[in-house]
Amino acid sequence: MQKPSVPRGTRDFGPEQMSKRLFLLETIRQTFRRYGFQPIETPALENLSVLMGKYGEEGDQLLFKILNSGDFANGLTQADWQENARKLTLKISEKGLRYDLTVPFARYVVMNRHALAMPFKRYQIQPVWRADRPQKGRYREFVQCDADVVGTDSLLCEAEIVLMLHESLRNLGIQDFTVKINNRKILTGISEVVGAEGQEGPLAVAIDKLDKIGKEKVVEELKQRGFSDESIEKLEPMFQFSNETQAAFAQLKTWLAGSEVGLKGVAELEEVWSLVGQYGLADARIQLDVTLARGLSYYTGAIFEVKANGVQIGSISGGGRYDNLTGAFGMPGLSGVGISLGVDRIYDVMEELKLFPETGLQSTQVLVVHLDAEGRSVGLPLLSQLRAHNISAEAYPDAAKVKKQLDYANAKRIPYVVLIGSEEIQTGQLTLKNMVTGEQQKLAADQIVEKLRQEAALL
Amino acid sequence: MQKPSVPRGTRDFGPEQMSKRLFLLETIRQTFRRYGFQPIETPALENLSVLMGKYGEEGDQLLFKILNSGDFANGLTQADWQENARKLTLKISEKGLRYDLTVPFARYVVMNRHALAMPFKRYQIQPVWRADRPQKGRYREFVQCDADVVGTDSLLCEAEIVLMLHESLRNLGIQDFTVKINNRKILTGISEVVGAEGQEGPLAVAIDKLDKIGKEKVVEELKQRGFSDESIEKLEPMFQFSNETQAAFAQLKTWLAGSEVGLKGVAELEEVWSLVGQYGLADARIQLDVTLARGLSYYTGAIFEVKANGVQIGSISGGGRYDNLTGAFGMPGLSGVGISLGVDRIYDVMEELKLFPETGLQSTQVLVVHLDAEGRSVGLPLLSQLRAHNISAEAYPDAAKVKKQLDYANAKRIPYVVLIGSEEIQTGQLTLKNMVTGEQQKLAADQIVEKLRQEAALL
Repeated sequence: MQKPSVPRGTRDFGPEQMSKRLFLLETIRQTFRRYGFQPIETPALENLSVLMGKYGEEGDQLLFKILNSGDFANGLTQADWQENARKLTLKISEKGLRYDLTVPFARYVVMNRHALAMPFKRYQIQPVWRADRPQKGRYREFVQCDADVVGTDSLLCEAEIVLMLHESLRNLGIQDFTVKINNRKILTGISEVVGAEGQEGPLAVAIDKLDKIGKEKVVEELKQRGFSDESIEKLEPMFQFSNETQAAFAQLKTWLAGSEVGLKGVAELEEVWSLVGQYGLADARIQLDVTLARGLSYYTGAIFEVKANGVQIGSISGGGRYDNLTGAFGMPGLSGVGISLGVDRIYDVMEELKLFPETGLQSTQVLVVHLDAEGRSVGLPLLSQLRAHNISAEAYPDAAKVKKQLDYANAKRIPYVVLIGSEEIQTGQLTLKNMVTGEQQKLAADQIVEKLRQEAALL
Repeated sequence: MQKPSVPRGTRDFGPEQMSKRLFLLETIRQTFRRYGFQPIETPALENLSVLMGKYGEEGDQLLFKILNSGDFANGLTQADWQENARKLTLKISEKGLRYDLTVPFARYVVMNRHALAMPFKRYQIQPVWRADRPQKGRYREFVQCDADVVGTDSLLCEAEIVLMLHESLRNLGIQDFTVKINNRKILTGISEVVGAEGQEGPLAVAIDKLDKIGKEKVVEELKQRGFSDESIEKLEPMFQFSNETQAAFAQLKTWLAGSEVGLKGVAELEEVWSLVGQYGLADARIQLDVTLARGLSYYTGAIFEVKANGVQIGSISGGGRYDNLTGAFGMPGLSGVGISLGVDRIYDVMEELKLFPETGLQSTQVLVVHLDAEGRSVGLPLLSQLRAHNISAEAYPDAAKVKKQLDYANAKRIPYVVLIGSEEIQTGQLTLKNMVTGEQQKLAADQIVEKLRQEAALL
């Protein structure tokens, strides 16, 4: 018999991982809620007509497609089978798996346009699927966590997203991070003032690498991409920005004085900075980064990216403002701004920094150990009492030696056991053992409940 | 442009539904946790080699299959294409979508057999997919919610499941329900004593309908299924069980005196009843139902089914004991007992009985209404203060008239608004308005936070 396995690029999550993932996602969920974002969920299955053409040619290929039910090949001719895979696919498949949360959200907004109170603030935490080549840290099935506001172009939304990012990460215990911000209009302005109008795309792709490859190689790449020596010379201010934000804004305004759109981008960013200040956010970790681009084609205003500092890992969040989320579904002109948190990467950051709470939130607090039917008759009402006080509790189900039961408690990392032997039954004083310290106490059932209740309240 | 839509049998869940679904699932999750069950999750994608052959021929057809990536048709001949759909499918598809949570759980247990502390108590709440014909209340994508204990045949587990069902439903506010219990061994025993050994399958199918079609029609069906007049006559006690459980047990023991396995079934059920009693469960809603079968082939011991009374809806939960969960994956003899809660049906029951809490748990508590930049500069720090006290709060992002902002609050069912106009800015006394009663109060920012904090604590 073949050993069972999971498909490449997919994962099982066992109790310990799940406990951590639930903590992570619930913390984010509660933070989003506090900012007035509401949850939605969309089906994993979407019609291919909704998904195809939204992610570029490569994206279309990376969609997981569902084979039509029943006699899917019925009526196909030899010519059909010999078609290329792409054309043949559409003849035997009409549904696919969700590839991201953005397109299904856009579809949802269009389908519910008359019922939604605008601006609409939604968050969505669901798995997505991509038929990508699996590699370290890249999966074919992974959870995305998105928050978006649509139906307004107010910059207050950008500021709220900055705040929400700070609060989400801090609530998870991640203190050392940087929220990098740019604005698409600034990149457009730069392309204008260096005499490369309309070339912000290749410009951004090259400049985006400044961090990694340095100025010289960026210049080399720009030359290869056809930028003139004059343009490259005019780009010099790019490499001389002040680390002090207000000074950098001033530099930008001088540099982009000839570009209306560029100046608008600067003004928008200044407003975001001012609004964030008005909230009184302590120790704001925002950084102007004019090199930030993030798949530019999508964004029309602010661009966000978050890095966890001191950890070797890519960005843990990204997003920005877009002006045409729902255009592909016949509803143009809807502006929105959103952010996506990378759940798997944040998980890895928290593991590396040991930020998950020691007490597994999903684990049992106390195991009731009985040795015979008489002990069990004392243990079962105690279980009921403990659970009534919201203390997770269980009994070892089989008649087994004490050692085996304690081994079970240790394997499950249960911090307390209650021992009920013949002495305990006679005296009514049960033995409460702390499995971490080894300390033992004789207590009545009521006292045990009270003690564990108090401990749970401190967590 | 075609109007976008969701595939038949799938659903979007908007904010209100999501809020209710999260309340429902979180309540169940916390109850399972209190009983020492630990969460796992498995991928939506499974290898077809894992899924096929586990759900019968019909089940194989109802699996959603994923088309292989790339040039899936490469190397296929005309003969391949003219094969029946089933054979062709296996040539162009090797993965499918999870059909239930049981088979993936079995796979998980086998793959992690050496790492799991037995008995292993797991719960799992995830969507499953079935290419069934959609109809009212039957979906192609729906959430299952399973809890199982494997690695022990202790009847304490059956008792724990009975308790956990009571607590789950009561925590959701569902008070009037019945947990029906039977035992496969009793059905086997009955087939033996009526002289129809090995015929418990057809016997159960017919008797299962007693509720709906009455004794006469059941007898008719048994005749059609080849039961002799003598067998049917011997079946008479079936229709004369006492409503009083202990009396019914006594009747069963007399009737099944000649069947060892039958008596074992009765003894097992008596033990479950006794254990449930020892827990001190108040108002236990368990009922012996000798007609209960539930796809018999699977179960080897206890069989459970839960009905919500006073609501026209099928069973909201079902389960039982099985002895060969992992046999198909080469790990025989693992006994377990489990329960599955029907999330969609429980949702419908709660809607019908109006059991969802009025205060949408996921909604905003207060909207800060400002009319200009000055008001906003007062409002934003207030937002921060409110959120720091775990009160969900937002501001209307655009400069808009008060009426528009209040309409937004009403549309989102936000119970409080804080009005910040020029008078409020001058005096520092902000207006707190209760959107339900219309009541208004002038309060300082700190007082507003304190008042809303106290209200939230009462929820």
